[in-house]
Amino acid sequence: MDHAVVLAGGSGTRFWPESRMRRSKQFLNLTGEGPMIAETVRRLLPLVPRENIWVVAGEKDSPHLSARGLGVPPGNILLEPEGRNTAPAVALAAARIERRDADAVIAATPADHAVADAASFRSALRKGFRLARRTGRFVTLGISPAHPATGYGYIERGAPFRGGGKGVYLVRRFTEKPDLRTARRFLRSGRFYWNSGVFLVRAATYRDRMARFLPPVHRKLERAVRDSGKKGFRDRLHRAYTGMPSVSVDYGILEKEDGILVIPSEFGWNDIGTWRSLHEFLGTEKNVTAGNVILADCRGALVRSDRGVIAVIGMEDVVVVRNGDAVLVCPRHRSEEVKGIAEEVQRKFPGLA
Amino acid sequence: MDHAVVLAGGSGTRFWPESRMRRSKQFLNLTGEGPMIAETVRRLLPLVPRENIWVVAGEKDSPHLSARGLGVPPGNILLEPEGRNTAPAVALAAARIERRDADAVIAATPADHAVADAASFRSALRKGFRLARRTGRFVTLGISPAHPATGYGYIERGAPFRGGGKGVYLVRRFTEKPDLRTARRFLRSGRFYWNSGVFLVRAATYRDRMARFLPPVHRKLERAVRDSGKKGFRDRLHRAYTGMPSVSVDYGILEKEDGILVIPSEFGWNDIGTWRSLHEFLGTEKNVTAGNVILADCRGALVRSDRGVIAVIGMEDVVVVRNGDAVLVCPRHRSEEVKGIAEEVQRKFPGLA
Repeated sequence: MDHAVVLAGGSGTRFWPESRMRRSKQFLNLTGEGPMIAETVRRLLPLVPRENIWVVAGEKDSPHLSARGLGVPPGNILLEPEGRNTAPAVALAAARIERRDADAVIAATPADHAVADAASFRSALRKGFRLARRTGRFVTLGISPAHPATGYGYIERGAPFRGGGKGVYLVRRFTEKPDLRTARRFLRSGRFYWNSGVFLVRAATYRDRMARFLPPVHRKLERAVRDSGKKGFRDRLHRAYTGMPSVSVDYGILEKEDGILVIPSEFGWNDIGTWRSLHEFLGTEKNVTAGNVILADCRGALVRSDRGVIAVIGMEDVVVVRNGDAVLVCPRHRSEEVKGIAEEVQRKFPGLA
Repeated sequence: MDHAVVLAGGSGTRFWPESRMRRSKQFLNLTGEGPMIAETVRRLLPLVPRENIWVVAGEKDSPHLSARGLGVPPGNILLEPEGRNTAPAVALAAARIERRDADAVIAATPADHAVADAASFRSALRKGFRLARRTGRFVTLGISPAHPATGYGYIERGAPFRGGGKGVYLVRRFTEKPDLRTARRFLRSGRFYWNSGVFLVRAATYRDRMARFLPPVHRKLERAVRDSGKKGFRDRLHRAYTGMPSVSVDYGILEKEDGILVIPSEFGWNDIGTWRSLHEFLGTEKNVTAGNVILADCRGALVRSDRGVIAVIGMEDVVVVRNGDAVLVCPRHRSEEVKGIAEEVQRKFPGLA
């Protein structure tokens, strides 16, 4: 069977003041379609039965998580004691899935990315499930780059993969976020894709690679999940996570694995990494507002208020966000600096961050 | 004796969101020296004994008025049922003052203007008291204009006033706010002064001119205040104000009076009419903040928060004000539009204006 693993353990403050220490981006309603995690689950539902959709999040996130709200069985929500990046998170879900279905193929996806064209997303995923099942390989979804973005990792393709049908390639390498010059070169070459963070693989294969590439993490987790139904599981999991290193699937597994495939895709993907990319996803040519907002003679303004009213006069390409007791004002192109400001607020006014 | 009448009945929304329907500018702490009305009283105290300082405000303002906070006797705070502009307000105070002291000279001053050099202000006022007492004339304080402001009324001087000492002129005429071209001409001529709104006159003379120039208003008020100590005064005052026209001292009296004097003065006066003029008064070359504010790479920003925190990144010449549930963002040079926005908020979100 096909399963999906929604990775919702991320944390961050790039969407301050809406994202805070206690509420991460995946739980924000940024695009107006509900919390990003709910949008992610909804995007999967026509393809993966709800009982096969799993969510991995942090214990700290449980106030924001509702199985009923997401439309998945309560037992499919797995809580990590602390975030250790994606490799352990996927392993936790893969172990549960494999126990239920030894032949399962999993599609792992971030909970906090936006997809404009959900049908195309599902087509790519369907193709990925088939390929991963038939070949036993890791399959990634690469996004045809629209511009030389420096905020994304890239996947370089190698030779076409024979027997994968049209439009499937072997991965030559994964790259970190490039500088602008390199990103331009990537774009010109036509061989590079944005790394969407979505990958598919048999659950059993994933466990095998954990054992091979990350043996200490693997052993700690195996011990903890062996009898996950039994009493004391939560304590065992806490012990397993204590002292466990943080390691991503990309760094810990994919960069060491041979024969990975990439399916070049286009489904209006955006990782929504900053207020700027949210506005770009929704269209910077227009004013985008949420809550009670009055704009007079503004262009390209992103203005969001969770209560009260915000009035903006005569501003262009500006971000104004009010949440609870905090207000942010910045030019859109400086959204990258929000993370640093959130840290400064946390330092100077600990009660307000 | 010399008396001062602080006119605190004004209302307006040019300082939205800090000024609201229920709290006018004179009760805001704009310059960091406390509410403007308290600053106004403090400026007078070295010159006028506290028992001779009178405050005229609206009944709606009483929550913001504390005789103890202002340092004046409680009986010196006079509440009008409704605002009817300055002529009736001064008349109300003048009647009370004259009853206590038939020879009193009053200095009437707005409660919500800023003065950078209080000592020079008092010198001008001292000179004004002497002149008004000796000549029986109205005496105004004119401000030597620093630039061709279009937001102020102007006083044109005529001939020097003989016997007034150096630096006293007859007033040729009062003008409304000019357009820029006219204001430039005023400035070049050297004969025009900004109208500070401060004037001095014997209390008895003021009553006489009310009777001559505004007889219906005069009669209504005289009937009400005749026995102001007695029971039912408040009801009589309410009846007097019902149907009374709004009329300013400038329009109702000064423009009709002959032989008014003007003392050209320089005491760093600013009527603080908008967020822009507040910032100009405090110095636009620097960032001016109030409350918990974090600025990153900002220039000429005016940022005020009554609670929580405001973070601003990379903005220039911007005004950001948060008060209660409302947030304002605008370029400084568009502060004039705040009044209109406040009205729009009132219309669209009545609970929040």
